[in-house]
Amino acid sequence: MNAPEKLPPTHIGFSLGAWSAQQLTAVEQALSRWVACPTDAPAPAGLGDAMRYAVLDGGKRLRPLLVMAACEAVNGNADAALRSACAVELIHAYSLVHDDMPCMDNDVLRRGKPTVHVKFGQAQALLAGDALQALAFEFLTPDDGSVDAATQARLCRMLAQAAGFQGMAGGQAIDLASVGLPLTSAQLHEMHRLKTGALLQASVMMGAACGAAPLAAQNALCDYGAAVGLAFQVVDDILDVTADSATLGKTAGKDAAQDKPTFVSLLGLQASRDYAQQLLAQALASLEASGLENTEALRALADMLVNRQH
Amino acid sequence: MNAPEKLPPTHIGFSLGAWSAQQLTAVEQALSRWVACPTDAPAPAGLGDAMRYAVLDGGKRLRPLLVMAACEAVNGNADAALRSACAVELIHAYSLVHDDMPCMDNDVLRRGKPTVHVKFGQAQALLAGDALQALAFEFLTPDDGSVDAATQARLCRMLAQAAGFQGMAGGQAIDLASVGLPLTSAQLHEMHRLKTGALLQASVMMGAACGAAPLAAQNALCDYGAAVGLAFQVVDDILDVTADSATLGKTAGKDAAQDKPTFVSLLGLQASRDYAQQLLAQALASLEASGLENTEALRALADMLVNRQH
Repeated sequence: MNAPEKLPPTHIGFSLGAWSAQQLTAVEQALSRWVACPTDAPAPAGLGDAMRYAVLDGGKRLRPLLVMAACEAVNGNADAALRSACAVELIHAYSLVHDDMPCMDNDVLRRGKPTVHVKFGQAQALLAGDALQALAFEFLTPDDGSVDAATQARLCRMLAQAAGFQGMAGGQAIDLASVGLPLTSAQLHEMHRLKTGALLQASVMMGAACGAAPLAAQNALCDYGAAVGLAFQVVDDILDVTADSATLGKTAGKDAAQDKPTFVSLLGLQASRDYAQQLLAQALASLEASGLENTEALRALADMLVNRQH
Repeated sequence: MNAPEKLPPTHIGFSLGAWSAQQLTAVEQALSRWVACPTDAPAPAGLGDAMRYAVLDGGKRLRPLLVMAACEAVNGNADAALRSACAVELIHAYSLVHDDMPCMDNDVLRRGKPTVHVKFGQAQALLAGDALQALAFEFLTPDDGSVDAATQARLCRMLAQAAGFQGMAGGQAIDLASVGLPLTSAQLHEMHRLKTGALLQASVMMGAACGAAPLAAQNALCDYGAAVGLAFQVVDDILDVTADSATLGKTAGKDAAQDKPTFVSLLGLQASRDYAQQLLAQALASLEASGLENTEALRALADMLVNRQH
């Protein structure tokens, strides 16, 4: 996030660190204000505390940054983008809460803190995740006139598809069924296309849906989102074996410990690193092909996603 | 559902049984066709089976019937109503899947069948519930031109609010925190207003949102939905102590066994029955005040909800 010296030469003059800080200030403020409304009709019986714990004070906010960057590329509605940015983060946050539960990954550490079910109990964690998913769709459907109805409907459609059985939840089901099994490259790609790729790609496409880009540009952004979504997972698999828990803020080495298939176990470490760089090149080429002008942030984010250390 | 002889005199000429059968045919067909698309891109890795098991072949479909009846009262868009009817049922179904899990109510019997986590395992049950919630919002946002964008956005907003922390999930959190505690009447009402009332009321209001009723009529339907939503829970509490598991299709007496506060434990059995009848009278009075003409189905549903035996 704050390593502009790593950016390729095309980014001279653009600081991802400064841009991200500005975007994240808006996103964090919105999340803090909107998640389970602390002052106006707060969530009852500790539910709001669990929801806020799951969302606030942590997370790299990659998905929100992709939304904001894509909206910037199409010069879209900033209110719609901010709501979309928060909505995708809520979906991501709820998936982590449920994924960490004992019946799933049974993880106790997340972002350097006890996971939600460790801190609030399993029942509250289950409810908090459920409530966060619903809240994502509330965020996308304000009745204050800031986002036109057609955009609201479109954003809801994109998010629902990315989160559901043809997206994230479907990918998690494949993941669940794949532990200990030898997956082919095609199967591993399909799992990750759904499990993490769908929501990352949707983040890009929702940002793009906040404006009115030509169809060719939308398709190019769609390709960018697919490449970035896949690259993210390849790098995640690499970091799972090369980084330690303190750097990651979550339990390192857990894929291997749980005998989960990964790109590293399938391709090996160096080939995985090469693959990540290929995907980065594809993502940048898609941006080039989009014909859009304000793609500095999308470029820098792709680079950061692939070259991150945690 | 098939007891028209119990309807008050005003319903002569209207058969709830025949009306319901017609509506439910459409709803069941739509659910069967749409839930985790069995033929076109099915849900992967057993997820679709768990989702379909949770939704199909069971359930009284009270919420879909309320949607359809309310849409009929305002002469609304039938496509929008059918999608809304399925969407509210998905939210209801997902809540049951999660509610039955060991970390919540730990129930093994639902609609006379093993619960989803018993049949498919906890992890798959968790994912199926999550995917059903997302699918509800997919149902509401078709891109085939059958439902205008403004209605789609409004339906998503209503459903998200009813399902989330200010609705169902919030009510469940209160429920969770209330086991073994003596609740006041006000606290018990607030819990049920959120836990079951919000989605029942939203069913009515979403049906109404499929048309364009005058504000006064919408407000009257809102009052009807609140009365019916509360009456449903009062009757549920009564049946929990008066009916057996075979009749209910779920474990009877579980509220008392789990030391959960109920209207029966708070008011006593006879006073609870009287209260249910008062709420029925309120619901019917609201319909009268709505000025709407085609309210036969809403009337008959209110009567059936209060006088049902399971």
